[in-house]
Order: sequence, then C-alpha cells, then structure tokens
Amino acid sequence: MDKIGTYEFMAEPFHCDFSGRLFLGHLGNQMLNAADFHSTDRGFGMKYLMGIQRSWVLSRLAIEVEEMPSQYEHFTVETWVESAMRFFTSRNFCVSDSKGRIYGYGRSIWAMIDTETRQPTDIYDIDDGAIKNWIVTDKLCPIERSSRVRMGEGAELVRTIDVNYNDIDINGHVNSVKYIEHVLDLWDIAWYREHRLKRFEIAYVAEAHQGDKLNFYREQTAENECCIRLVKTEKSTNSETEVCRSKVLFEVAS
Amino acid sequence: MDKIGTYEFMAEPFHCDFSGRLFLGHLGNQMLNAADFHSTDRGFGMKYLMGIQRSWVLSRLAIEVEEMPSQYEHFTVETWVESAMRFFTSRNFCVSDSKGRIYGYGRSIWAMIDTETRQPTDIYDIDDGAIKNWIVTDKLCPIERSSRVRMGEGAELVRTIDVNYNDIDINGHVNSVKYIEHVLDLWDIAWYREHRLKRFEIAYVAEAHQGDKLNFYREQTAENECCIRLVKTEKSTNSETEVCRSKVLFEVAS
Repeated sequence: MDKIGTYEFMAEPFHCDFSGRLFLGHLGNQMLNAADFHSTDRGFGMKYLMGIQRSWVLSRLAIEVEEMPSQYEHFTVETWVESAMRFFTSRNFCVSDSKGRIYGYGRSIWAMIDTETRQPTDIYDIDDGAIKNWIVTDKLCPIERSSRVRMGEGAELVRTIDVNYNDIDINGHVNSVKYIEHVLDLWDIAWYREHRLKRFEIAYVAEAHQGDKLNFYREQTAENECCIRLVKTEKSTNSETEVCRSKVLFEVAS
Repeated sequence: MDKIGTYEFMAEPFHCDFSGRLFLGHLGNQMLNAADFHSTDRGFGMKYLMGIQRSWVLSRLAIEVEEMPSQYEHFTVETWVESAMRFFTSRNFCVSDSKGRIYGYGRSIWAMIDTETRQPTDIYDIDDGAIKNWIVTDKLCPIERSSRVRMGEGAELVRTIDVNYNDIDINGHVNSVKYIEHVLDLWDIAWYREHRLKRFEIAYVAEAHQGDKLNFYREQTAENECCIRLVKTEKSTNSETEVCRSKVLFEVAS
C-alpha cells in the first residue's frame, strides 16, 4: 500500500459560499476525513483505536490555499505522515484539482489519548510502533509550520455564542471543524468580497461542551492578520478557560 | 434512464451527533444533493437552469425517519418526481441502508423562479414540459404530506441569532439546510438523549440575508410536538418578516 493516501471529493453546491467557492470549514472536514481513511486503511484508524480505548486528538491544524475549489468541482486530498514521535505525530495534506493544479496545503499535529483517563498515551505502543513504517520524508509541504499564536493585551471581546446540539460530535465535545466555522463567521460577506482567506491556523487547547458559552477575543496583529482567542465560560463557575487559538491571514482579493 | 435516481452516501464521522447518528441537517443536505444529481442527469438541473435564468426553489420539505444512519454507514437516497404542475413540482425521497432496510422518507415541493425577476415561472416551459416524462406514480412514499403549520398566539420568542458568513450559499441567502440546523439547535442534548426526532417539516416563506437577525418563536402544539416560526428583523427598518415555519415531532426514545 502506498504511504500517501489519495481521496477524491466534490465541492458540494450547498458547501460553497456566496462566491461559489468551497467553505474552508468543509475543506477542513474533508482533510479530517482523508486523515481518518488513510489511518484506517493502514491499521491505526479511529475505529480500531476505539476498541482499545485510544483516540487521535487533533492538536493543531494549518491550511494555506491559493484558491478554493468551485461548486461541483472534484478535488483530491492527499495525506501522509510526516513524522511520528511518542506523543505527537504530524500529518500533511495537499489539495489539488483533477488536472493536478494545487489549491493548497495543510499541516496537522495529532496526539493520542486514552479515552478513559483522557491522558496522552504513547503512539509507539500501537502495533509495536507500526506508524513509523508509514513516514514519508520526500513529499514537499511548502507551507510554514504552525507557530505559537502570540496575543498581546489588545484582544477585544467581539462575540459570544452558545454551544448547541449541532456543534457536538460523537466525542461529546465541540467538533474541530465547528471552531473553524465560528471563527470565520467573525468576518462578514462585505469583507470576504474584498479579501481572500490565505492561511488559517488553529491550536486546540481544551474541550468545550454543550451549555458552555464561547467568547471570541480578537486582536489585529498585522495588516490583514488577526489572532483569535476562544474561551469558554462554564455555567456553574462562570470561570473562563481557553479553548483554542487561531490565526487568520487574508490578502486583498485580486 | 430510470425515472428513479439512486445515490449512495456515507454518514461521515463529523456529520454525526453525540449519539453517533447522522445529524438530520446532513441527511437533508444529501436529499438536496440527490435531487440536484437526479434533475441534472435528466436535463433540468440547477446548472442547466442557471444558463437560462431559471432556478429551482425549495418551498417545503418534510422528513420522517424511523432511525438514522450510524457513523460510517453507507446509505442510499432514492428520489423521484411524484407530480409536476405548472408552478409546483413534488419530489419524494426514500432513505435506506445497503441491505434495503428503510431509514425513512422525505417529501419536497419545489417552485421555479426567474433568477432576474425572482418571480415564479412555468415549469412546463423547460424543454417543452419534459419533466412530465419523469413522473413516477407507482412508488410509495408512506409519510404524510406537509401540512400548513398552524400556530396560535402562544408562540414564545426563545432565541435570536445573527445570520453569518457560513449561513449564506451561492444564492446569496440563508441555505435551506442551515434553517434545519438552527431549528434543531433549540433543543439541547439532554432532550435528544430522551427523545428521538420522528418528523421534521419546514415551509420556506422568504429569504434571509447576512446581517439579518433571526427570531425563533416556538409553540408547543401537542405532546412532543412543537411549531416554530422564524422571522427576520432587518437592520434598517427593524420590521419583522416571516422567513419560514417548521413543525417538529419527537417521540420518547426507547
């Protein structure tokens, strides 16, 4: 079996935005699907892990695109393991059209947890470190690694939302893709008409659950670049806990 | 070509709720995809209509399910035209698993508009009434037709949300499926643990746009049955306009 997994998807009509281009959240979802299919086919997928009380946990995701697939377009997501250490593995993505033209790339970092204790576990424990056999070193992913999202004191509370039924997946907490959507909802269509999303980064810190309120703190860190800190406030204690951090880079649309 | 179109989908892991069952919104989305594929293959799809300044507009949708597909399950959506008149056509759906076991059914009503004037147009104008050749009269859809959702004075304002970037599709207004999700978000996970969604009905009345606020008025109309009226308030005038009405029927989970 090839070390690189290749999966085809279509930009479904109702998964495209006002401009007829795929929403970034849906591209993120297809990357996560590709990751799941790739690892399942190679013996370390979510389904198998569930049976041995383990689960992959997405820790960081960065997506950088030159363009997004248009409505009805078929696109390909390639994914491969770039490196695997005891407590983290990095998985990359390349998104292209049917003619091989590149839309963009993705980088992700995953940890593995024990689903009972919710504590990190050793990735090499799985099938005697078999993941090491799948590492690809010679496939380029020419986008920057995720950086630590640094925020100063200038972040402003710009929105508060409730976590609802449709935000929660089978893991019982807010689905990774929903955060992407909620963050990108901070800008309106007038902004998206003038600006193209170039790079999106998110680092997941803690889990949010239904009933939590999510506060979005936003800080402009450069021209067309913003950092967002999401914190949850729990009903019972009213204390704020950081849930994730995101950095969004736009460029003026041509 | 068969008058009935048959399309296969998978209940993607991140499209399933806390219980591991497909969200109803995603089932609705796959029904709309199936409708689009079916009509495209038979010469009266959205893409073709776009070129002649016409578009299908979903007017009503009813979905009734005995069960929902589980995470990773493959399911089939069959769709066919039940009837076609000058200004409305009705299209039905049957959802089943790979062994033919029925999950549920759907009924929908569609109008056709001129995309310039936004006025209804004659469906028979398209290719000399060719849609009449595709009518299926002998396939059962054993769920009730959509009824007029009657609401009294007892409806209570239970939520207000903003229409955001991710709500809007290429038509420039709130996507039909997003309403389903927003309505079903009115109940929390504690409710869904105890109740199974049996039937969902929605009638689309007017279009909502980004920047609108949506008010949800809910009225309990029978045991485990609620009706919801969604109205938009426009920024400029602050006037309320009805956007859609929905009826949701639950049953106590077994």
